Amino acid sequence: MWSALVEPGDEVAGALVAACGAAAALDWVDRSLAGSTDWDLLGAGSDLAPPARARLTRALDRWAARRPRVDAAALARAGARSGAHLVVPADPHWPARLDDLGAAAPFALWVRGEPRAVRTPGVALVGARASTSYGERVAVDLAAGLVAAGLGVVSGGAYGIDAAAHRGALAGGGRTVVVLAGGVDRAYPAGNARLLEEVVRTGGAVVSEVPPGAAPTRSRFLQRNRLIAALADATVVVEAAWRSGAASTAHHAARLLRPVGAVPGPVTSAASAGCHRLVRDGVAVLVTDVAEVLDLVGPLDAGRGEEPAPAPGDGLDPVAARVLEHVPRRGALEPGELAARAGTSLAEVRGALGALELEGLVRRVGAGWAARPRGERGEG
Amino acid sequence: MWSALVEPGDEVAGALVAACGAAAALDWVDRSLAGSTDWDLLGAGSDLAPPARARLTRALDRWAARRPRVDAAALARAGARSGAHLVVPADPHWPARLDDLGAAAPFALWVRGEPRAVRTPGVALVGARASTSYGERVAVDLAAGLVAAGLGVVSGGAYGIDAAAHRGALAGGGRTVVVLAGGVDRAYPAGNARLLEEVVRTGGAVVSEVPPGAAPTRSRFLQRNRLIAALADATVVVEAAWRSGAASTAHHAARLLRPVGAVPGPVTSAASAGCHRLVRDGVAVLVTDVAEVLDLVGPLDAGRGEEPAPAPGDGLDPVAARVLEHVPRRGALEPGELAARAGTSLAEVRGALGALELEGLVRRVGAGWAARPRGERGEG
Repeated sequence: MWSALVEPGDEVAGALVAACGAAAALDWVDRSLAGSTDWDLLGAGSDLAPPARARLTRALDRWAARRPRVDAAALARAGARSGAHLVVPADPHWPARLDDLGAAAPFALWVRGEPRAVRTPGVALVGARASTSYGERVAVDLAAGLVAAGLGVVSGGAYGIDAAAHRGALAGGGRTVVVLAGGVDRAYPAGNARLLEEVVRTGGAVVSEVPPGAAPTRSRFLQRNRLIAALADATVVVEAAWRSGAASTAHHAARLLRPVGAVPGPVTSAASAGCHRLVRDGVAVLVTDVAEVLDLVGPLDAGRGEEPAPAPGDGLDPVAARVLEHVPRRGALEPGELAARAGTSLAEVRGALGALELEGLVRRVGAGWAARPRGERGEG
Repeated sequence: MWSALVEPGDEVAGALVAACGAAAALDWVDRSLAGSTDWDLLGAGSDLAPPARARLTRALDRWAARRPRVDAAALARAGARSGAHLVVPADPHWPARLDDLGAAAPFALWVRGEPRAVRTPGVALVGARASTSYGERVAVDLAAGLVAAGLGVVSGGAYGIDAAAHRGALAGGGRTVVVLAGGVDRAYPAGNARLLEEVVRTGGAVVSEVPPGAAPTRSRFLQRNRLIAALADATVVVEAAWRSGAASTAHHAARLLRPVGAVPGPVTSAASAGCHRLVRDGVAVLVTDVAEVLDLVGPLDAGRGEEPAPAPGDGLDPVAARVLEHVPRRGALEPGELAARAGTSLAEVRGALGALELEGLVRRVGAGWAARPRGERGEG
């Protein structure tokens, strides 16, 4: 619902959902739009700082227009029609790397294809639509080399370098992830529709944070770039003009403290000017081949294999495992809500939560429960 | 004489000349080769450390074979025949930048053409003989841009990038300096003979630290690279293979703490691999155009104009000026020796040295006199 209500990267919405949980935050918005804003419910009580109140009030104005048109049932139908899954932070398939975006993290990802591919360690290969045959060749070679090394390739599905990167990954027999600015049911650009189908067919995925049917607007392209950076272990710019979307992806990656590489080219080629600028500015390391890109990524964490690590529910009894799937990572849910979602009794949920707490998989947050991020969990 | 006796970069010879002065050092060598090594004359007395004695003894063995063939008169004739001046450290035309090489500084430079060009602030543009048309185009453009900005262009006169750099400087109407590994009378490579003549004809210079007639041997090429780096305010590598002479010039410049740039190129071009390596290793800054090369050089010292600063002798009486020309910058000479060299009486030399000392242009070193480096001199 949140992914349909607000624009990508809306940090006020992100903070609200982090504070209350997605469902309670939506209830709060609905009551506020109906005229009764309950500031106390936000936990900060009546002493919520005036600038924060002002930001929330402006955000409510933003959301008011679209709220009546957000229809959970219709979204679910659109998702089903386009063959898309909705993956939310509580889902074991949720790519934990996205959490590094903080309040700018997406509320959910719509995924066509294999959700595991989105969690696969990988490198973003991005670049200019106005690419040269040199740049495309380098993108194909790097992508094929990366999948040969067991990594995935993330890109934006655009013409030029993006398409060459996806094609190189497919040619190498690997999986690749396309991050779209519009809905996953809208192949954009249309000329790459067959490429996107091939990505889905070969075990990769086409993902978006906006719901099926959403148009790829200019601001969504810019926000999409942060997802590409956040979904990859490193970002490499193959060709980019002096100002370009690919350079913005590189800056997002740098802000996330992820490694950034840039491929040099002729100084006489405008398509390489952005890459050279990134190197001169110290944003990117100059990389010339797959080995240097792998150096950039460094040894992958032992905890991250090509396949997702064992889901947190492994080894638990079936009820506890099912309850755990519904405990949100951001925000918290009360046992009654969890029982409704997991389709179990309140008593079963309470027993399951006790067991999960002992395992270090969930923690109490006020009257509710939240999943513990992996880093916080104890061993075993 | 020293430039003919020892190979370029012989640091034992450099230290000996620095300690005694060129003439006294040569006398010491001659007496040592005749069988009477006077260790006391070296100033360190009988307590000269055994490793230093051993190094000097090995050096004497090195020099013994060539000494009988070193003939000052013949050298002077060869210089005159080839139209070369001999510029020594005491000379006002001596490029003070070479002194940063310390004991590896050359004893002298043979200069065909305009000695002032050698002191002009400039940038070394170096690169592969096996260049591409892309690299040559960049070298021509950078050289033309540098001379338009009032800088000189230093390079090695080789085919490929070196020749393109010299040609670009000439095309821009500027002066360029060719640093050869062999004698200035030996155009090497022969195919660039007309280019070297053009350099000389247009106010530039062809220089070498080895005497006319000397062959360009492999070790002299490597030593020549340190001169290119030391004669320039910054060094830019335009194209270079993974291992290359141009990369060695860049490393010499880095050791001299001079700025180093490298021009990127296609990662598919072996001719750019050395440039990319220099950037990745942090030896060079990536540069793509003249403005970025000028950034590298930084604002030139106010004390260094395009023309040499006024010679130290300006405004002195003719005898004092002539004496000053013979006071060595490294080592020292006694008044009797200076009188012989300057062709003046001992009394005139003593009077001149007193005046020069008052001007801050010379200083006493034991029983002898040395010229003060410019930085040490007082104003006026």
